[in-house]
Amino acid sequence: MGLSRKKAMEGFKTLASVDEALGELLRRVTHRPEVVERPIEDALAHVAAEDVTSPTDFPPFDRSAVDGYAVIASDTLGASLTNPVVLAVKYQVDPGTDPGRLEPLRHGEAAVIFTGAPLPPGADAVVMAEDAIVQGDRVFVTRQVSPYQNVSRRGEDFTKGKPVIRRGQIVRPWHIGALASLGIAKIKVYRPVRVAIISTGDEVVDLPPEGGLPGPGKIINSTKPLLKALLRLDFFEPIDLGTVPDDADRISSLIREGLGKADAVITTGGTSIGAKDLVAEAVARVGEVVFNGVRMRPGKPTGAGVAGGKPIFMLSGFPVAALAGYMAFVRPTLRHMTGTPEDPAPVVRGKITRRVANVAGVRTYLRVRVIAGKDGYLVEPLAITASGVLSTLTDANGLLVIPENVEGYDEGDEVEVVLIGPPLEAY
Amino acid sequence: MGLSRKKAMEGFKTLASVDEALGELLRRVTHRPEVVERPIEDALAHVAAEDVTSPTDFPPFDRSAVDGYAVIASDTLGASLTNPVVLAVKYQVDPGTDPGRLEPLRHGEAAVIFTGAPLPPGADAVVMAEDAIVQGDRVFVTRQVSPYQNVSRRGEDFTKGKPVIRRGQIVRPWHIGALASLGIAKIKVYRPVRVAIISTGDEVVDLPPEGGLPGPGKIINSTKPLLKALLRLDFFEPIDLGTVPDDADRISSLIREGLGKADAVITTGGTSIGAKDLVAEAVARVGEVVFNGVRMRPGKPTGAGVAGGKPIFMLSGFPVAALAGYMAFVRPTLRHMTGTPEDPAPVVRGKITRRVANVAGVRTYLRVRVIAGKDGYLVEPLAITASGVLSTLTDANGLLVIPENVEGYDEGDEVEVVLIGPPLEAY
Repeated sequence: MGLSRKKAMEGFKTLASVDEALGELLRRVTHRPEVVERPIEDALAHVAAEDVTSPTDFPPFDRSAVDGYAVIASDTLGASLTNPVVLAVKYQVDPGTDPGRLEPLRHGEAAVIFTGAPLPPGADAVVMAEDAIVQGDRVFVTRQVSPYQNVSRRGEDFTKGKPVIRRGQIVRPWHIGALASLGIAKIKVYRPVRVAIISTGDEVVDLPPEGGLPGPGKIINSTKPLLKALLRLDFFEPIDLGTVPDDADRISSLIREGLGKADAVITTGGTSIGAKDLVAEAVARVGEVVFNGVRMRPGKPTGAGVAGGKPIFMLSGFPVAALAGYMAFVRPTLRHMTGTPEDPAPVVRGKITRRVANVAGVRTYLRVRVIAGKDGYLVEPLAITASGVLSTLTDANGLLVIPENVEGYDEGDEVEVVLIGPPLEAY
Repeated sequence: MGLSRKKAMEGFKTLASVDEALGELLRRVTHRPEVVERPIEDALAHVAAEDVTSPTDFPPFDRSAVDGYAVIASDTLGASLTNPVVLAVKYQVDPGTDPGRLEPLRHGEAAVIFTGAPLPPGADAVVMAEDAIVQGDRVFVTRQVSPYQNVSRRGEDFTKGKPVIRRGQIVRPWHIGALASLGIAKIKVYRPVRVAIISTGDEVVDLPPEGGLPGPGKIINSTKPLLKALLRLDFFEPIDLGTVPDDADRISSLIREGLGKADAVITTGGTSIGAKDLVAEAVARVGEVVFNGVRMRPGKPTGAGVAGGKPIFMLSGFPVAALAGYMAFVRPTLRHMTGTPEDPAPVVRGKITRRVANVAGVRTYLRVRVIAGKDGYLVEPLAITASGVLSTLTDANGLLVIPENVEGYDEGDEVEVVLIGPPLEAY
């Protein structure tokens, strides 16, 4: 009846820590996602697969940074309100003007110039409009300027050869802006990491398209849609391979299908002893089980394997435990595949409102409610256990990750919380 | 020649603060985006347009939280290793079993049960496998359990009527999981806020699809792709209406087109005096100009108007100034339209590496480099001005927002930085 298999229940003692387990996994993950070329606007949030350097100086010409008068700086020496310098206004330079078609400015001359317009040949500075008084075709300059004052120099933003983005960096809005300004229309990026998801469990059924509750003893799979959404927010691409009963043959054949279609595979479910063994057995048939169980809670039964250099994550069927497994293993591994450091999480510091105990040596994901009080944030613990209870997430707006070397917190201790929603206002 | 129009250049003195300007704008924005019904997985990152409460208790039945033996708790009274209680094992309850088909347990009886399986009728607790020794069809219970120990109670996660998500909240992965588990397949959400973008500037051209640099005196529009990317990351929907010369007729007709197609309009460009007036003039033809210029840098020439309750943002043509305008006005206004609090930003505290001065009364967006040092983060200021210089963003990984009431920072002062990329490692 499976109940002699007590090994998996001996507690955390024999299990690896999260960092040890992740390290073992990363050493074996050698697969890299395909490289594709994309128009820069479609490359948003992808990972750059090449170093891009500037092919040119940008801006491509000296241009005015203000509205005013292009001048020869030395002409304005000593200019002041009481002793203005008088210059002859020769022409106006609008933005978009081809500077090659302008007559060079000579000493004693000025040109009206607008922000962004090219500096005319001969000129080497711009007097701001508020430092000048215009009278017919003469301008009285009331403040002296030094060479290249109020001028954006050619190459000020990017000199030829300067890095714009590096391989492994996430393409962000400013990279797209910079690439556009340099005339670069396409960039090589990694295709978003594809992740096949397979849910297992005799009691689990997928949500019917029109909704409604399943028959007695059955529950709807909430973990798979949760994981697909987490993957999408991180710009990974989930491939849903459905929900299957606890059957090693069917699970291993789906894992094989997933490895063919995707860069990584996630299984969910099988946290009960018998079923757990089925998933690990199925993984062992197609590759190597790297670890099976880890010192974290929720998510102690989390495991991972590898096949052909691709990771296979064995996550809990319970949604909160699967979320912890995603944060601890899936995201770091998928980022590692493209050499991308993880993005900073939104964190706040606050005072915990009641005592929380931790199991020594275990990493704990505590769901909390962060409330903005008068004297800073308050952090109200909701639940450590209850790995299946989604309302501890919908009620929460933060996760307090308690590290292995912390035995707990006393009421009033300051802690750092990862926000998963806006802080609540005290009332 | 436009240079008598000195008013716009008198400095910050006559301008509203960011908060005053935003407040005036929000008071006038009454338009709300359309409400649509979406399958829950497609509603990710949308804003809920209805309160959803649980239609049922969840879990829908008492279920085992562990692998072990379903029992009647009172039968185990006083059980210990030296004095075990012996029960007769009647049957096995697998996950997915219909509990209505099980014979009720009687005193002296137990059933093998797996995690997630329904508690059989008659039973009211589960003995964990490690607290039991099986011998043929008898089980020796070595630790007593109290009623409902190791049981997930019906309704433990959601009782009927408990809120799952509220109108105005962003749909996050755990909301999708919770809705799925409750059999809710669709949810009413706001259609992502549509934003028409119009770029203006005689010198500005759009990036050609195959790339390459424009003719002399011209520059490629980098601000529009930057803004489109910012909008997309926030799950707003940009509608690109192209780049037009500085011509009030064409600009106002495009603003009208944008108001017809979208929930909001952004114009970029026209930071030079003449052009600026053209955009404000174009806005005034179709609606009301709410403010034109604001006490922030970069982005001082930022303005906004309103027409038919829809906001029209007049952003700088310079990319960094447009980013500041986006953060200060566009995002808060678009969130306001769906009653959604802004998401927490990823922030770190660190010590600033050199003195930075601020103009009193002005909000400043300083680009910085955040470096993880041995004793915490170091914050290296890159640029306050240079509103056109995108490399101050591609080189940066943080923004230090200096509030109006801060005159500056001294070297070593601790500051809070919004991260726009991962912190750098010191080497």
